[in-house]
Amino acid sequence: MRDLAWRLIAEGANASTRYPPEGWLEYPPMTRTLTTTPAADGFRMPAEYEPHAGCWMLWPERRDNWRRAAAPAQRAFVQVAAAIARFEPVTIGVSAAYFESARRALPEAVRVVELSHDDSWMRDVGPSFVVHPRGRVRGVHWRFNAWGGLKGGLYAPWDQDELVALKVLEIEGRDRYRAPLINEGGAVHVDGAGTALVTEECLLNANRNPTLGRAQIEAHLRAYLGVSTIIWLGKGVFNDETDGHIDELACFVRPGVVCLAWTDNRRDPQYAISADAWERLHDARDARGRRFQVHKLPIPGPLAMTAREARGVELRADSAPRRAGQRLAGSYVNFYLANGGIVMPLLDPRRDRSAAALLKRLFPRRRLVGVRTREILLGGGNIHCITQQVPAAPPAA
Amino acid sequence: MRDLAWRLIAEGANASTRYPPEGWLEYPPMTRTLTTTPAADGFRMPAEYEPHAGCWMLWPERRDNWRRAAAPAQRAFVQVAAAIARFEPVTIGVSAAYFESARRALPEAVRVVELSHDDSWMRDVGPSFVVHPRGRVRGVHWRFNAWGGLKGGLYAPWDQDELVALKVLEIEGRDRYRAPLINEGGAVHVDGAGTALVTEECLLNANRNPTLGRAQIEAHLRAYLGVSTIIWLGKGVFNDETDGHIDELACFVRPGVVCLAWTDNRRDPQYAISADAWERLHDARDARGRRFQVHKLPIPGPLAMTAREARGVELRADSAPRRAGQRLAGSYVNFYLANGGIVMPLLDPRRDRSAAALLKRLFPRRRLVGVRTREILLGGGNIHCITQQVPAAPPAA
Repeated sequence: MRDLAWRLIAEGANASTRYPPEGWLEYPPMTRTLTTTPAADGFRMPAEYEPHAGCWMLWPERRDNWRRAAAPAQRAFVQVAAAIARFEPVTIGVSAAYFESARRALPEAVRVVELSHDDSWMRDVGPSFVVHPRGRVRGVHWRFNAWGGLKGGLYAPWDQDELVALKVLEIEGRDRYRAPLINEGGAVHVDGAGTALVTEECLLNANRNPTLGRAQIEAHLRAYLGVSTIIWLGKGVFNDETDGHIDELACFVRPGVVCLAWTDNRRDPQYAISADAWERLHDARDARGRRFQVHKLPIPGPLAMTAREARGVELRADSAPRRAGQRLAGSYVNFYLANGGIVMPLLDPRRDRSAAALLKRLFPRRRLVGVRTREILLGGGNIHCITQQVPAAPPAA
Repeated sequence: MRDLAWRLIAEGANASTRYPPEGWLEYPPMTRTLTTTPAADGFRMPAEYEPHAGCWMLWPERRDNWRRAAAPAQRAFVQVAAAIARFEPVTIGVSAAYFESARRALPEAVRVVELSHDDSWMRDVGPSFVVHPRGRVRGVHWRFNAWGGLKGGLYAPWDQDELVALKVLEIEGRDRYRAPLINEGGAVHVDGAGTALVTEECLLNANRNPTLGRAQIEAHLRAYLGVSTIIWLGKGVFNDETDGHIDELACFVRPGVVCLAWTDNRRDPQYAISADAWERLHDARDARGRRFQVHKLPIPGPLAMTAREARGVELRADSAPRRAGQRLAGSYVNFYLANGGIVMPLLDPRRDRSAAALLKRLFPRRRLVGVRTREILLGGGNIHCITQQVPAAPPAA
């Protein structure tokens, strides 16, 4: 403001005149970058099953990750967006080049905004929202290195991904905490009541925060998620290229209740991973000292990429290749909880119905919508990975 | 929705469960494209002096219009944005390439969103907002051809400009009327009470809507602005490359009162233009049958582009050149009315104070802020041209 060339304040001006007059709508607040932490300010990350204001997604565009110039993936994203939009408002970020085609492909109920990105994983590059009991919502903007940077990361560069959380918070008009931790939204689940669930494979990986030990990472998670207890599982789902994100392996159904990706096939490398997770969950206590009730959700398949599918991807030197026969990290745990709904992946005709039946038992008051998402899985994730909920602001006290 | 692969509705689901519960905040509505017109739906365009929800701008980037890679213009835009942000929330649209530098240059009070454009004239490419007496706000999305298309337009292509109004309305969550008329926001002023002010030079120009006559253009303006009376002035400010936009020549102070760019120098080509406008205004009656009270606001200068200024522009075959000695269409009428404020251009030390004094007399209850905007004028417009107000929603009846 010092730069303003010159100011003329009128003799006749009445500084106490109120604009706009009382009773007119107010514009949402703008985005400040805060130097405190959510926990210090009394904020916590709510669980996904708490009420939402809406959901954010990104449009798939990369031809080196999505086969056939991303057209089949785009159709699957449209179906996911349309399914979620039955329950809550959906906004999808699209680069300038794809804006018009995305706007045409998506139903009017979905808001389309210009938002560049390096790939379409809003769970991982979007903000993790936190809420205050007196009604405010803010966002945590993690540092991001494309799931491992130059040590096993999935592509380079990732500079546009790094700006996504800031851009979402600017549009939402929410204040931002800039976390010092390299982290992704899919690497943490919370129960909304003081407990976080993470994997060692991801959060202790040398390609994320090599200078930080377990205790320091726990301190950051407490500060930025507003949790008190962190439950460490070991590895994530077999061959998950995110280095074992929790959101393919396990999630909270409600505080004290966990849903775990499972197989009874002891020859499947997933068996030892799930069994280890089951034992750790059995031994753990949550923030309120409770034992966990654990529900086993059998994985689909095992599923693998076909030669035809792999051929549709345009290989590039700076991104991870897709290979025929590659085991896909398919998991029904990667569903999205919308307001009053569950949007779940359909991946395997032999398993979809029993997975859906279990989810119905676990969430009896929610409507279940299934979407065929093999095309999303081929790109390395599923419905939970491509979505990010915005919590509803709790009513002001 | 027919495309959804498969749906499982639970036996146990309770369809009447309300999400989110009463009392929680609601998400803004999404953007529909309507096939009716504002007038048919009971909407009207409010005057700029009515209360605002906020203001939109775009970031100057083109090196073939803004000298020295747009850096001096960017500084002037920052000052305008900061000045308006004292009175109301400001959002500025920036292309992906400039997002970080714009975010750093602008104060935190200004919201920055990614929004591609061909140049930075939000008045002309943004939506013209209309309001309903029962509290709703919608936007009119005009057709746009870069001020004349291939017959004297200022650059090509203009495909990104054509999407700006849609993108603003998506972010604002406001419904959209897609008008069939090629038009720009700077080509019309309204008094909010049934009267519009336009120029023949622009709206009857063969490079805009060559197949439409005056009566048909009037019909479109009535339908999309919700006005009943259209006052036609002749030419706009001398050498205005927009083909005579009204917003450099004249504006409403309140219903029945007009401010007119003026010169007493009969050898200046502006004299005949302003004198003709004065006579037409003298003879006109507004929507309520009133005569106009007209205030003459002397122009600065005359001002011309210096050789040094012209050299800083990187010429390109597809855009209009900048030439040393070129007369600049400087006018103090191109101010912006913010909530409780006027942000006016400072262009000429010999005239700024008397122009400011007149504006203070015309708007005694507003604070006046002056910003040195020669760098904006060099690009072809001024403060009004680079801003677009969003009206506050009237209180629901």
